[in-house]
Order: sequence, then C-alpha cells, then structure tokens
Amino acid sequence: MRDGVVYARGSTDNKGQILAHILGVGESLRDNGELPVNLIFLIEGEEEVGSKHLGDFLAAHRDALRCDLIAISDTGMIAPQTPTFTYGLRGIAAMEVRVHGPSIDLHSGIYGGMVANPATAIARLVATLHDAHGRVAVPGFYDEVAAIQAWEREAWARLPFGDKEVLTVTGATRTFGEEGYTSLERAWARPTAEVNGIGGGFQGTGSKTVIPREAFVKLTFRLVPNQRPADILAKVRAHLVANCPPAVRLQIEDGHGGDPYLTDPHSAFGKAAQRALAASFPGRELALIREGGSIPIVNTFRKILGVETLLLGLALPDCRAHAPDENFPVENFEAGIRLNKTLLEELAGD
Amino acid sequence: MRDGVVYARGSTDNKGQILAHILGVGESLRDNGELPVNLIFLIEGEEEVGSKHLGDFLAAHRDALRCDLIAISDTGMIAPQTPTFTYGLRGIAAMEVRVHGPSIDLHSGIYGGMVANPATAIARLVATLHDAHGRVAVPGFYDEVAAIQAWEREAWARLPFGDKEVLTVTGATRTFGEEGYTSLERAWARPTAEVNGIGGGFQGTGSKTVIPREAFVKLTFRLVPNQRPADILAKVRAHLVANCPPAVRLQIEDGHGGDPYLTDPHSAFGKAAQRALAASFPGRELALIREGGSIPIVNTFRKILGVETLLLGLALPDCRAHAPDENFPVENFEAGIRLNKTLLEELAGD
Repeated sequence: MRDGVVYARGSTDNKGQILAHILGVGESLRDNGELPVNLIFLIEGEEEVGSKHLGDFLAAHRDALRCDLIAISDTGMIAPQTPTFTYGLRGIAAMEVRVHGPSIDLHSGIYGGMVANPATAIARLVATLHDAHGRVAVPGFYDEVAAIQAWEREAWARLPFGDKEVLTVTGATRTFGEEGYTSLERAWARPTAEVNGIGGGFQGTGSKTVIPREAFVKLTFRLVPNQRPADILAKVRAHLVANCPPAVRLQIEDGHGGDPYLTDPHSAFGKAAQRALAASFPGRELALIREGGSIPIVNTFRKILGVETLLLGLALPDCRAHAPDENFPVENFEAGIRLNKTLLEELAGD
Repeated sequence: MRDGVVYARGSTDNKGQILAHILGVGESLRDNGELPVNLIFLIEGEEEVGSKHLGDFLAAHRDALRCDLIAISDTGMIAPQTPTFTYGLRGIAAMEVRVHGPSIDLHSGIYGGMVANPATAIARLVATLHDAHGRVAVPGFYDEVAAIQAWEREAWARLPFGDKEVLTVTGATRTFGEEGYTSLERAWARPTAEVNGIGGGFQGTGSKTVIPREAFVKLTFRLVPNQRPADILAKVRAHLVANCPPAVRLQIEDGHGGDPYLTDPHSAFGKAAQRALAASFPGRELALIREGGSIPIVNTFRKILGVETLLLGLALPDCRAHAPDENFPVENFEAGIRLNKTLLEELAGD
C-alpha cells in the first residue's frame, strides 16, 4: 500500500458523507498521531452535470494522483443498520428530443385538423420506447447486456429490501418493469429508458386552446455492463428517426454519458473494505449489492489512474436523493466516521 | 323585424371587431338620425373560459333580450378582400388528465426500473388517442358525425385557401390529418382531439435525473354536428380508463363544453347579411364557409332566446389568434364599420 485517494465529492446528495470522510480521517489522526496510509482528497462539483472537466484534471495531474485505490461515499445502504458494499453501478446516457411543428402556437379550433400537433407527436414517439411491460423497445438495446450471475440473484433475494420496501419508499401503489426480474434486479442490473421531463404547450391552470409550436422530452438511459453510452445513443437516435410521426421536424441532442461499472467484491481491497464495514456495524450481516445510479467518474479513475474504486456509501433508501426533503440520518453520519477511520487501518494492514 | 341583438364580445381576439360594430352603428345613427332597427348590445368577458354565467344571464333577462336575431363578429375571412359568411362552427369539449405515480419525484438511477414513470404513462395514453394518420381512435368518437354535404365540398374546393395557404399561415412544413378530406374539410367539418398542453418532470435547461411524481395533459376535442360534448367526454373517459398503463393512478377532470353549430345560410337573415357583406367588399366573390373554432354561446342563444346567429367576422388567416403578435388589419377594421352600418339597413329592409 502506497497511498489511497479518498475522493470526496461536492454533490447535492452526499454532503453528510463527505463530512464523515473528513471526520473519520481526523479521528484516525487524533488517535494514532499519524495516518496509517497516505491520503489525497480530491473534491469536485460537477457530478450532476457529468463531471466534464475531471478527466482532463486527472490526466494533467496523473503523477500527483498516483495511488492504489479510490474510495467514494456516494452510494447507499440497502436498509438501516445493514453495512453495504456496492460493487456495481449503472451507466447513463442522456438525450433531449424536440419536435417542431408550426412556426407559432396556433388556435386549435381554427387550425386543429390541418397540421400535426408536436405535443401529440412527442407523446407518440415516447410511446415507442417501451413495450407494454416496460421493456425497452429500441432495436439492439439489450444486445450487449451482461446476464445477472446466479450468486447475485440469490444474494439479492435474501436482502431486506423487496417490493414491499419499494412501495414504502417510493409511495407507488405497484412495482412495474421488465418481466422476469425482481425490482432490485431491474434497478441494479437491467437497463432502462426514463422520461425525466416532458413538456409542450399550455402549462398553467385551466385551459388554453393552442396547438403548441414545439414539444420536448428529456430522456436518460441507465446502462449495465457491457452497454456503452455512444452505442446506445446511436441506437435510440436511429429508432426515434425511424418512428418520428409525419409532418413534424425532429431535433435530437445527445447529453452526458457514463459507462456502467463493475468491480470484484472479493479483491484484497474489497475484503479490507468489508472488514471495515463489519466493524462499523457490529453484529450486522453485510450486503453485497450493485446500485442503479451512475457515478461515471469511477470509469474515468480506472481509465486514467488505472485503479479500482471502493463504493462505501451510507445513504438510506428513504434519503429522497434529488427530491424535496433529502436527508441523511445522524446515526449514519456517526457510522460513517467510524467506517472511514477503520477503513484506513484495514487498508494499511492489508 | 322587431329588434336585433348585436352581441359584442369581450374576448382577447376580437377587440377590433367589437369596435367596428360600435362605430358602424354610430355611422348609421349619424347618417340617418336614428337606427333602422332596434339594437341591444350584450357584452361579456368569459368567452375563453366557456361563458359559464351567460346562460343564467340570458334566462334571467329573457324578456329584455327578446329579439329576431343575433350578430357576432368573432369569426374570420377566408382570405383578404373576400367577404365571408360563416354558417357553421365546431363545438368543443375539454378535459384535463393527470397520471400519478410515486409520492415524490424519485432519483431515476436508484429507482428507475422499479416503478412506473407517470411521464411515460401519459405519453402512452396520449398515443392511443389517434391512429397513425391523425384519425381519432376513441371508440364511438365518429358515431354521430354528420357527413359533409356535396355542395359544401364543391364550394370549399373553390375557395382561395388550400394547402399552400395553410403552410404559409401556420409555418408547418406539411399538412396533416385524417385521410380522405382536404385541410378545410378537416378543420371545419371533421372532429379532432388536440393536446393543448403536456407536462411532467424537469422543465428547465439541461438534465435532472428524476422519475416525476405526476404528469398531465390538457386535451380539447373539436366537435361537429351532431356530436355532443357530454357524450364525447364520456367516450374519451372510458377509452382512457381502458388504456391507462399499469401501476399508475389516473385522474380525469372534465372541462368546459360547447355544442357545434350549423345554421341555414339561405334564410332571409342569411341573405340580408350576404347583401351587406357584398356591399362592403364591392366586386369581390362571397365565400360561404364553416369555421373550426367554437363559439358555444350561439347554441345558448338558440336554446334560451330561440333565435339564430349571424357570424360576420373579419379576422384574416394570419391574425395569429391566441398567439404572440395577434393582429387585426386597419382595412378590415374599416370594412367592418361599413359592414355593420349596411347590415342594419339590409336587416331593416328585409
């Protein structure tokens, strides 16, 4: 062990976890007089917009950042009091699609029936993205998808987080998605196509009888090994062009992308992290999971610095990430301090 | 002839026409010392929200409003310098549909694949409203639709407003709609289902990876004889309920409605109005048309006061009604003054 880069991110949804990193390191320093491993803090603030400049920064400071390992706290625990080691993440590919029709909003009485309605057209286009069961209907979308391993299906089925917990956390009345998979399997190891925003025409209270001049949809695709963002965006683009309703103009803009990530939970570093987790939550069974979110920079680290990343997050399923009333419990904050202190010792002894 | 109610409306898109009414009457009074017919001005300001209180007002003042005829300037001319008599209007039925999913916006990475996305669901629902050619796919929607008369198809085919003019006025690159009908036939005598607004999830610039908690669509249906708003809304509701994607909750609210309208252009009043129109645009051929918009109160007048309505509007196809840069040309304003002055004389001589 030469040094470990503790990568503390400046995101909206892990400020508490970043502070736990720092305080855990502080406690280690206080108790031992020195740190058991070398550390570098690397802090950025572009996570939610695709970390555009981090790759250039890593390349420019490759020597200064030489390390054995990255540690990031940006993931979650599968349930309260359940130490969780995350060994996989989904990737992402974003796209914004606009449908243009008349040059101005038109009176829908006078012109309704004469020309195409962009809001109708965008809806018809979105409706081609899935089959009735939520499976993505874009040709070739699943071509590169790696199958879920048998041991993963078994391990995930034992976790204290099933459909009942999904409904409690989300407030949905039913789970929904691709047939043949559990909710966890669909969110962790199967790709999706989600509408993050759709809009066009009158948005206010009541009625305004217009044919809108344009309508848009903001899409993101969550990717799993071995899908690649550029390939998926190209396939989706071809599908949208092929399925665009007549008499409107289609405009497609590719957004940010990030590869999916999978690391070996049974590596030496992985085992050290699991020991630290176990020590931070005495007597609790450890969960080995993937996560549905995307942390594209773990692939950037692997590519530029040549190292793996430990994902040791402590957010709970009801943390409301990206939503109103986002939260991080004090007891997890305290566990995070213990975890980060212990992790340094376990890594040093490895 | 006892008296004629000149109904001048307080709408957004006919202020110029209302003023022409008043000034035409003023010129008649100036030139003749008295008016050739009795007049009542009836002015309201609820047109764009369905004229909810006008019916009660008419019923309460039925005696004071006894008349032979209504005249309204809220329609348009088929082309510049083309005197236009409108003898039919489409009706309207409005509906707002919401799809509810999770109780909060969810992180689309963490939960994407577990639960249904309301924005996807609303798009799939909207996509069931039409076939690929723009014909409404709601069962029973066309059951009561009266066929276009042969003389109407011939007369409309001769009008100086075809697909080329539709494209010029709307800025669309192609016309679009139900097969087997011209653009004018589709807009005047065939019903439609239009999305006036659609929305859900992130509306700002860039990307936000959420599964929105809900999504909405604002719909209006333009109706033709002999469709009735309540019947159409019931059929659409049944269709939406039957086609609602799984794992979301559907909320449907009926909005305002108005019956379609058709009057006889060859009645005595109709002929008087056509003479006034001809005199106001000397040497120009008169157009007999229907219009795609809705003026629900013409049916209220017929029902409560028992009289027909003359629709003598002067808006041009590029007036941009309900849109930015709405306009009404000065020469049509002046023609409107001539028309209203002459109309009173023609009605008196009838």
